[in-house]
Amino acid sequence: MPAAHSEEQSDDQTAVHPDAQQSVEQSASASDLATWRLPPVTYPSSNPYNRAKEELGRKLFFDPRISENPARTCAACHHPGLGWADSMQRALGNQQGLGRHTPSLINAGYSKAFFWDGRATTLEDAVSQDLLSPGMAKDETPDSIVKRIASIAAYRQEFTTAFSSSGISFERITDALATFLRGIRSSSTPFDHWLLGDSAAIPESAKRGFALFTGKADCIACHTPPNFTDSSFHNTGINTVDPGHYEISGKDKDRNAFKTPGLSDAALTPPYMHNGSKATLAEVIDYYDRGGDTLDGGNELHPLHLNDREKADLLAFLLSLSGEAPETLIPALPLALTP
Amino acid sequence: MPAAHSEEQSDDQTAVHPDAQQSVEQSASASDLATWRLPPVTYPSSNPYNRAKEELGRKLFFDPRISENPARTCAACHHPGLGWADSMQRALGNQQGLGRHTPSLINAGYSKAFFWDGRATTLEDAVSQDLLSPGMAKDETPDSIVKRIASIAAYRQEFTTAFSSSGISFERITDALATFLRGIRSSSTPFDHWLLGDSAAIPESAKRGFALFTGKADCIACHTPPNFTDSSFHNTGINTVDPGHYEISGKDKDRNAFKTPGLSDAALTPPYMHNGSKATLAEVIDYYDRGGDTLDGGNELHPLHLNDREKADLLAFLLSLSGEAPETLIPALPLALTP
Repeated sequence: MPAAHSEEQSDDQTAVHPDAQQSVEQSASASDLATWRLPPVTYPSSNPYNRAKEELGRKLFFDPRISENPARTCAACHHPGLGWADSMQRALGNQQGLGRHTPSLINAGYSKAFFWDGRATTLEDAVSQDLLSPGMAKDETPDSIVKRIASIAAYRQEFTTAFSSSGISFERITDALATFLRGIRSSSTPFDHWLLGDSAAIPESAKRGFALFTGKADCIACHTPPNFTDSSFHNTGINTVDPGHYEISGKDKDRNAFKTPGLSDAALTPPYMHNGSKATLAEVIDYYDRGGDTLDGGNELHPLHLNDREKADLLAFLLSLSGEAPETLIPALPLALTP
Repeated sequence: MPAAHSEEQSDDQTAVHPDAQQSVEQSASASDLATWRLPPVTYPSSNPYNRAKEELGRKLFFDPRISENPARTCAACHHPGLGWADSMQRALGNQQGLGRHTPSLINAGYSKAFFWDGRATTLEDAVSQDLLSPGMAKDETPDSIVKRIASIAAYRQEFTTAFSSSGISFERITDALATFLRGIRSSSTPFDHWLLGDSAAIPESAKRGFALFTGKADCIACHTPPNFTDSSFHNTGINTVDPGHYEISGKDKDRNAFKTPGLSDAALTPPYMHNGSKATLAEVIDYYDRGGDTLDGGNELHPLHLNDREKADLLAFLLSLSGEAPETLIPALPLALTP
């Protein structure tokens, strides 16, 4: 069966390979390789996992009838064939164009902050905001969404099965979608295999790159294990017009600060940065190496002074964090009426 | 592996079941049940099949970058989860709304006329017209499409493999898409199993319905075997404003005449008629039973005078032509740049 993810890397608790350990010992920052292993995703007690709920969420994710605009499914912007994102610089939203890049959904279930500005702190809230956002839907309300979905006969039975009682509510719709999203995990990557002891899984260059990542380049300061993000917000000087997390927190330190994205499967989800302004990972490395661009607002970066070989090593490490692009199943959707 | 179709029904050449034969003998119109068996689809010599070409076509079908509007993939209107159509009355086109219902792509490879008005006679031509239609794309040209696809590095290798020489052209894009579309076949249906000799595959009611279909109700006059269409055009009085095939042929007999759709998997593709005005197959049967609506242009129908049991039998037969809704694989799409 084709799957959006692999859980292999999170189930095995074997010790790390000595070869990996040796590379790490070259770095002052990373003391324990086990911290780089992604654990199983957790489901909140208010929205526990069951398979029927996940499969219902999958259907809703691909169903154009969730939106008042039938050209818009969740998958239209979070395209499974494009790393659960859209490959464009800026998100299209409800056709009018939004100001920020569509974030990938890979490993969203591990996140504690959602959207580039962190305006949601749970996946259920993020889904809810997305469905109702004026940039995504025009005049949409929880009731209008529930009405459309509840008008589809076959969905009524599926909700009953997934939630063990009859009834379709906006909360159940977002719960089902969030459950599906928690299943969208990064692939089994060369880096994962290296952590598990296969010293040939990544090239020597990537091993040197890991030492740079955790050492001289200090990427780990924000891209912390195991999901390569501190779930926090930083000003990297990309854009001083967009207020970023300041709009949410109201704190000066959060001006022009954006959420640290995870790096798993990053090679599958170009372009990069909150405004999609970097087309490749090599461009991202160059940007950080020069300490970002000089902008009025300043930023948290400082020049890294990496030489060409070090940049290549860092890129090799970033590439080792990506696996094979997954194939994804579109389910048959419930029909509106019995024939 | 999930598949959009099954070829089971076309590969086996065993004799029909005596039970099926008996029902047919009640009908004056259908002399040979073997004629109802769908043969393997044929590929034109100008665009022969190979697996790499089909898989390339699958990617292009799901790739938003084929369109100048990134919200629009082939799959947005021909949604595999909605019977390769969109479940709406009228097609959305490039967001402005079109005048006719989105036809399903199921068994399109068997057709000799495309679009409701028959303005294309090959699948390659139909794909080409669809990609360039002003209702579907704004200011799109073959060159603009080729330029976008050819800018994606990984596609260049895939075209070379699929066509055994390098180069991406508009013709190759339409050839690959047409090859993928020829693989979208109807499911293995109860009717197919009945034809193959399983007398319990369809209920007695459906067997009586088949006799009506080929006899008193004379649906077979236009919905001819094996694809349940004569690939021709008929005025069923649904709408006298839309000129239909007249726009193509210029012949008076084709005024308000529309292509006969196939009926395989019809239960998976509501609503019905060229303008999507009938929500259910039961409504369609009622419409034909009353000889259509009285409209200025007249129509080819005449009242059938079916009683309620006969209508139910005919519906049971139509339902026996549909199988399980398929699950469909979205492939990983080629990335625009190497990282």
